[in-house]
Amino acid sequence: MEKYKNKDEYEQDVELRSMLPKGFKVGVVPLEFFPIEKNLVKPLPMKLSLIVLDEETDSFGAVFTKNKFPGHPVTHGRERLNNRTIKGVIINNKISNVRCNGGLEDISLITNELGRAFSCNESLFFSSSTGIIGWKLPVNDILLKIPALADSISNESIFPLAKGIMTTDNFPKVRSAELKGGRIVAVAKGAGMIEPNMATMLLFILTDINIERNSIREILKQVMDRTFNRISIDSDQSTSDTGIIFSSKLVNGVSLIEFENSLLSICRDLATDVVRNGEGTSHVIEVRVCGAKSEKDALDIGKAIINAPLFKAAIYGNDPNLGRILQSIGDVSGNFDIDINPDILTLTMGGYTLYDNGSFILNEELENRLNSYLKECSLREESLGFPEHRKNVEIVVDLKLGDKEATVYGSDLSYEYVRENADYRS
Amino acid sequence: MEKYKNKDEYEQDVELRSMLPKGFKVGVVPLEFFPIEKNLVKPLPMKLSLIVLDEETDSFGAVFTKNKFPGHPVTHGRERLNNRTIKGVIINNKISNVRCNGGLEDISLITNELGRAFSCNESLFFSSSTGIIGWKLPVNDILLKIPALADSISNESIFPLAKGIMTTDNFPKVRSAELKGGRIVAVAKGAGMIEPNMATMLLFILTDINIERNSIREILKQVMDRTFNRISIDSDQSTSDTGIIFSSKLVNGVSLIEFENSLLSICRDLATDVVRNGEGTSHVIEVRVCGAKSEKDALDIGKAIINAPLFKAAIYGNDPNLGRILQSIGDVSGNFDIDINPDILTLTMGGYTLYDNGSFILNEELENRLNSYLKECSLREESLGFPEHRKNVEIVVDLKLGDKEATVYGSDLSYEYVRENADYRS
Repeated sequence: MEKYKNKDEYEQDVELRSMLPKGFKVGVVPLEFFPIEKNLVKPLPMKLSLIVLDEETDSFGAVFTKNKFPGHPVTHGRERLNNRTIKGVIINNKISNVRCNGGLEDISLITNELGRAFSCNESLFFSSSTGIIGWKLPVNDILLKIPALADSISNESIFPLAKGIMTTDNFPKVRSAELKGGRIVAVAKGAGMIEPNMATMLLFILTDINIERNSIREILKQVMDRTFNRISIDSDQSTSDTGIIFSSKLVNGVSLIEFENSLLSICRDLATDVVRNGEGTSHVIEVRVCGAKSEKDALDIGKAIINAPLFKAAIYGNDPNLGRILQSIGDVSGNFDIDINPDILTLTMGGYTLYDNGSFILNEELENRLNSYLKECSLREESLGFPEHRKNVEIVVDLKLGDKEATVYGSDLSYEYVRENADYRS
Repeated sequence: MEKYKNKDEYEQDVELRSMLPKGFKVGVVPLEFFPIEKNLVKPLPMKLSLIVLDEETDSFGAVFTKNKFPGHPVTHGRERLNNRTIKGVIINNKISNVRCNGGLEDISLITNELGRAFSCNESLFFSSSTGIIGWKLPVNDILLKIPALADSISNESIFPLAKGIMTTDNFPKVRSAELKGGRIVAVAKGAGMIEPNMATMLLFILTDINIERNSIREILKQVMDRTFNRISIDSDQSTSDTGIIFSSKLVNGVSLIEFENSLLSICRDLATDVVRNGEGTSHVIEVRVCGAKSEKDALDIGKAIINAPLFKAAIYGNDPNLGRILQSIGDVSGNFDIDINPDILTLTMGGYTLYDNGSFILNEELENRLNSYLKECSLREESLGFPEHRKNVEIVVDLKLGDKEATVYGSDLSYEYVRENADYRS
């Protein structure tokens, strides 16, 4: 189990994971700007980050939000997927470039300027943005910074970028693996608004392992479905969720299945990092629903539990209020007409059986044990800049009707969540 | 607009509405008990309430939660619907009688005892319970209190019962109407967990207007669909939601449509009372989705907005973060494949247009106005025991694709909500 005493110790560990694969460089520069939507006395700070391949590649892929109000970067990115080759991606925080005037034109101006800076075709860059919806990018300020951004790149580490793309994130998130001389490095930004289809989440995966275009796209989709699409901090999927993968194709000899398994493991860890790092998360909750007739039934039930505000608030209070789990199961089963049998299913938390034979097993001693268990799994609420531990509140629902299962991850509902979200823009 | 200065003023007004229809009596008695699930030094207080008809009636109906873990009173109530006649209902707070051992047998013991007390058939009473899930009713204590409960009944007012059935409710809720010498009085308990299908909500409607059995059941269903099933405080529907209607059939001459319209108006007011009274509600949000191709589309979009935690937290903070509304619309439309056109829909809050022609209209002045508007609509968080005003945060989404619409009501997400729900049982 990973455990850190302080921020330095955590960041040293992240830096060790952050070495870039062959054929990539990254750079980050700060920027200050005045948004046109607000009269401010002091400018706001933004960070521009860049991932760039030494050589254009045809092996890349991306997955985007299913939200029907996609941000301009998503619309732009979907078109870029048709490119024969790609060179990299520019990322900004603070403003998400969603539903503002001329947002798509702004992206063209920025990516064209990048083309000039790297003496390549002007349509070779993705653009990703995260932050406030509705505000316009400070496009002139960004254009002026692009030469400095191009100058800032280095082939050493993705760590500065992992910090550069943070918004309300509590700590930088990087996961990586070595595979027969090749390397996969993945970095994520995401806090709040995390849900299936990767709500308000940015994910960039870099590898030098040679996987051809169609395979890398299919593998990305499969892995996303089993990792980032199974986490939920609230029930929204954002307008801007994006996951992009690039291969520099410099290392041969890794099979598709080896690559997929390695990526699955990286993304599972990174997805849990994202939950643990959610705005105001004080418990990470892991719900495994097994014994289901179908994986979809298991997923729907798991998500209903993980998204139920009453249950989430109870976990925050270290209150093992299991009635609220059953309530959620019954609610979603009634609404979606999922087959369940309340008389045979069982429910455990932290290994303790709490519901069996159609009734709760409730007594003072068990309740005290569960209360202690929940306290052990808790994280301090203040932003420490590092994850204290990787304990999850483990809940298992066995429907005893079949052999399908699914595991989902989510966070509790804390004062801190409300505070951050009541006051995000001020 | 109803506006109250203090609790006394509000309660006087509620008392004026509380006169019982002809042919009904109600009674309330307190009870103290030690739950078997917890070792307590002091007993917990419970209230037993009773609604009883002078004569059995065949004109009654009920609607229940769709939750697949129904409480024992719901299972029992569904059977009672087949009764030729009914005599009344007993209600307790504190324990919901859900998924505990022998809960159905406990109800039989209690309703049998009521039959003896009123010298009638023993299967003539409904039983409703609200409170903690999983705990067992203190059935012996209740049985011992039934003679006193039967003695306590009076034909004057439903007001004591409106207070007796409260749990975390902030104030008693009664609505009534006079109709050609007849009367409808409705009383509700509900706070937290309020959603479509009337989650954790108890509703009792008493009338002396003569409506025959089939009609009263059909009208109850129609009215519920358009009122209580369109409110949401969080996204759960509880295991115990129940709405029961009784007619003593003593007043003739009111048409079905007059009765239905009157009941619709009562239930709409009562449903908004329930939202305003929700645990930690500091704003009541009213979302009208119009211009939809179907009422279902409008309802799905309205509910997605009213259930989005990020949006709810922003409203709590008086932050007009409209991006989060669009995000919810886009999210639900993507997930349920609802047809929307982001380029033509419009969005207003409190009458101010905020999104038009595919873009946000954002500027400092408008944002300040919206901030003031949200402050005007806010309620103090502490439990005052009365609703200060009936202002709602009014949001209109015009999809401009058809002529169908739906309006839903919900609450914001406050610190107080988290506090109450993190710590409900202690």
